[in-house]
Amino acid sequence: MPGENIEDIDEPIEKVEAPIKLLFLSKEEVDSLDIPNDRIVEEIEKGLEAHGNDDVVMPPKDHLELEPKYEGHYNLLKGYVGTIDVAGVKVIGDYYYNYLRGLPSELAMLTLYRSDSGVPFAIMDATQITWMRTGAVTAAGAKHLAPEDPKILGHIGSRGTAWYNVPMLDSMFDFDEIRVNSKRAESRERFAEEMGEQLGKEVTPVDTSREAVEDADIIIDASRLTEPKVLEREEWIKPGALFIPYGAVLSMERDLPFQMDKIIVDDWAQAKSSTIGQLYPLIEDGSLRDEHIYGEIGEVVAGLKEGRTDPDERILFWHKGFAVSDIMLGNLAHDVAREKGIGQEVTFYENPEPR
Amino acid sequence: MPGENIEDIDEPIEKVEAPIKLLFLSKEEVDSLDIPNDRIVEEIEKGLEAHGNDDVVMPPKDHLELEPKYEGHYNLLKGYVGTIDVAGVKVIGDYYYNYLRGLPSELAMLTLYRSDSGVPFAIMDATQITWMRTGAVTAAGAKHLAPEDPKILGHIGSRGTAWYNVPMLDSMFDFDEIRVNSKRAESRERFAEEMGEQLGKEVTPVDTSREAVEDADIIIDASRLTEPKVLEREEWIKPGALFIPYGAVLSMERDLPFQMDKIIVDDWAQAKSSTIGQLYPLIEDGSLRDEHIYGEIGEVVAGLKEGRTDPDERILFWHKGFAVSDIMLGNLAHDVAREKGIGQEVTFYENPEPR
Repeated sequence: MPGENIEDIDEPIEKVEAPIKLLFLSKEEVDSLDIPNDRIVEEIEKGLEAHGNDDVVMPPKDHLELEPKYEGHYNLLKGYVGTIDVAGVKVIGDYYYNYLRGLPSELAMLTLYRSDSGVPFAIMDATQITWMRTGAVTAAGAKHLAPEDPKILGHIGSRGTAWYNVPMLDSMFDFDEIRVNSKRAESRERFAEEMGEQLGKEVTPVDTSREAVEDADIIIDASRLTEPKVLEREEWIKPGALFIPYGAVLSMERDLPFQMDKIIVDDWAQAKSSTIGQLYPLIEDGSLRDEHIYGEIGEVVAGLKEGRTDPDERILFWHKGFAVSDIMLGNLAHDVAREKGIGQEVTFYENPEPR
Repeated sequence: MPGENIEDIDEPIEKVEAPIKLLFLSKEEVDSLDIPNDRIVEEIEKGLEAHGNDDVVMPPKDHLELEPKYEGHYNLLKGYVGTIDVAGVKVIGDYYYNYLRGLPSELAMLTLYRSDSGVPFAIMDATQITWMRTGAVTAAGAKHLAPEDPKILGHIGSRGTAWYNVPMLDSMFDFDEIRVNSKRAESRERFAEEMGEQLGKEVTPVDTSREAVEDADIIIDASRLTEPKVLEREEWIKPGALFIPYGAVLSMERDLPFQMDKIIVDDWAQAKSSTIGQLYPLIEDGSLRDEHIYGEIGEVVAGLKEGRTDPDERILFWHKGFAVSDIMLGNLAHDVAREKGIGQEVTFYENPEPR
């Protein structure tokens, strides 16, 4: 219903059927949907394409900060995606000490709305969706930017999104070698073992970030540093490599981005407006500017800009994550849950009245 | 658990019990709670007091605008109230043509979170809560700012919040005369009749705003204009009157606020940062400035500033509504629903794990 002004309404708008119900999905229900990785990546690509074509609305992220009272804050992401005609709001709490409560540090709630009327139709735990969509944006980026036939994946970080990045990338490229480095030996060894079993191939834990990075065709940095540290040096990154860092804290030599042939981001305006993110310190001190950015991944996915144009070029793809991806995957999760009869239905309005 | 830094934690933080469930309340379930007006006003006063004492966190409101694709937008309100230790986010859709769908123009969803961990514990339709809290802020303001023993209430507007303003104020002051003016005769007559029955006293529909305003001790302007129009003139407002306008569009003579003895607001920083609201045009053109504002209602409720200091002074109290009030009433609704066994319980996390 484009341009819904009263003059444009030539057929009567349909009454919404009562009662209005919506579907609530728990963490475990979202897990049980078991959506194949390729379908997830495909959905994420549709979202990136909409973003590239400017068929989205996405105001800057927003925060509710509870420090110093608690070591916690909430991030609020909201947006609208034209291709699926859905609006959504994600509220994601981030509490450092939640492990002491037996909880994940991040707990996320996503609510989706019919964008013609504002009627909510789904609410779900989006903790896993946040990881999935981050993994899928990594994978979608690699699909469009990786060198041909990449053999070696170097992965830094072994928590959260790591569980999605590695299988999504491997199902796309079937690597000969997968190396994982992370801060704690115990955690990378456990990850390597479990992931190796899941993929049916060896995943090698390595002691240093250098061992993960050198000679790798695709390098993912999903580290969760609390203060800047150099995990990547320019000289370790081989010609033709794709480097995807997306931690919140700077984890590379400050010069490194400028020695890459292309820097591609997910949303440059949002990257500039938030003070959190890998490369923000370079934006803040004025060294990373508009002219350094080749484009946004959505433009590449939408075919508005070429991705890789030279087998030897080194590409840095920095994504911070945005609401469009949450809305795409949340909507997919809702559709699959309806198909499979999964979820808890609740009544929102028994008898709506115009008032 | 104030100042939750690891050094301050001298007893172990308790594990959260699994499964984590939360309470969902439909529109009709919220209605059925039947919370007495005085309890609502009391709760709202607690929130205003916390705001006055700076025991809240409340970033500016935020918007998701779907025009020109739809005649619709969402307002996002978020905050934290220290006295009840609850964080909350309200998403309120505003769709002009919803009446054609048999829906209210505004549909609101409020989610409440335990502020030590970010665990959500309640989600509810907040359409009625939005009206209730607006009525209750009006009533709380009148409690602290009205002249002694007010006899005449003049009310402009007969929809939405009008249904809460009038009974809340009348239960507090037991007026001799209640006059109601609104744009459409039919709607004010219906309102006067129904409200008269509800209160067991006469409510008089009047044809002009002047008839509502002149000689009234308390004047409420809850009009919902789409463009500026003069509904109040300074000369109609008698000495000692309390005038509470809170529509989104300027509805008085531009000079009027400056002829009042005191201007009191709910949150001056938020009033200045949003472009919507009664007096915003005066802020925008630079005529209404910091020095014109006597204080915020929270400061008066908290006893940090005196309210009325002269029986003859004319006070203008402008409130725009804020998240603190939604969180207070949402939390009260949740508590009452738990007491009464009302609501739909859903599972959020079957088996949380630190991850």
